[in-house]
Amino acid sequence: MSFSSVLKEAVDGVKGSVSAMVLGVDGMPVEQHTVEKVISLDDLSAEASQMIKDIDKASHSLGVGDANEFSIISDRCGIFMHRINSEYYLALIIKPGGNFGKGRFKLRVLAPKLMREL
Amino acid sequence: MSFSSVLKEAVDGVKGSVSAMVLGVDGMPVEQHTVEKVISLDDLSAEASQMIKDIDKASHSLGVGDANEFSIISDRCGIFMHRINSEYYLALIIKPGGNFGKGRFKLRVLAPKLMREL
Repeated sequence: MSFSSVLKEAVDGVKGSVSAMVLGVDGMPVEQHTVEKVISLDDLSAEASQMIKDIDKASHSLGVGDANEFSIISDRCGIFMHRINSEYYLALIIKPGGNFGKGRFKLRVLAPKLMREL
Repeated sequence: MSFSSVLKEAVDGVKGSVSAMVLGVDGMPVEQHTVEKVISLDDLSAEASQMIKDIDKASHSLGVGDANEFSIISDRCGIFMHRINSEYYLALIIKPGGNFGKGRFKLRVLAPKLMREL
């Protein structure tokens, strides 16, 4: 399954979902699919590296091991990040009122498909 | 509704939920309710202040405004944080296999009840 078809499935299969992206933990965007620009994926890539470091530091300090997923929800959107492997993350942006639970589920199902391609 | 009854409702009303806490953005624990210790709430309090700063910094850099909620999910547990107001957060810890979606919903419903007490 190609990156682009996985990203399209993530966006099309979740109510309110507007964009999806594969990105490196270093903040390098690999591929993205957007149907509506709610946030800049370039900005998300730029922020992601530090966010991932901060979250990993916190989860290790708390003794819960690697953070497989994290999310930030504001009035503007939900940002869902799912670890594909130690090098890559899959991100999904969902508008308010969208199906956040289904979004998390989709990322969990799709991340292993991407892992096989990376 | 007292803090303790709200925290008890959060834990009792969500499958897999093991503890709930009201804490200040400065990392000061206000009240907690635990039925099973999966992580140390003292450690969570100690980490929370920096986590909240990091998440707020990221969400503002991304132009999505205040982060009303954030979560970190590992193999060991899900940590769900919901902003009550500018000074306090409500935290919920849920074991793997628990109902994360219901947990988020409960925090959204219960946070305004706590806001009236703070």
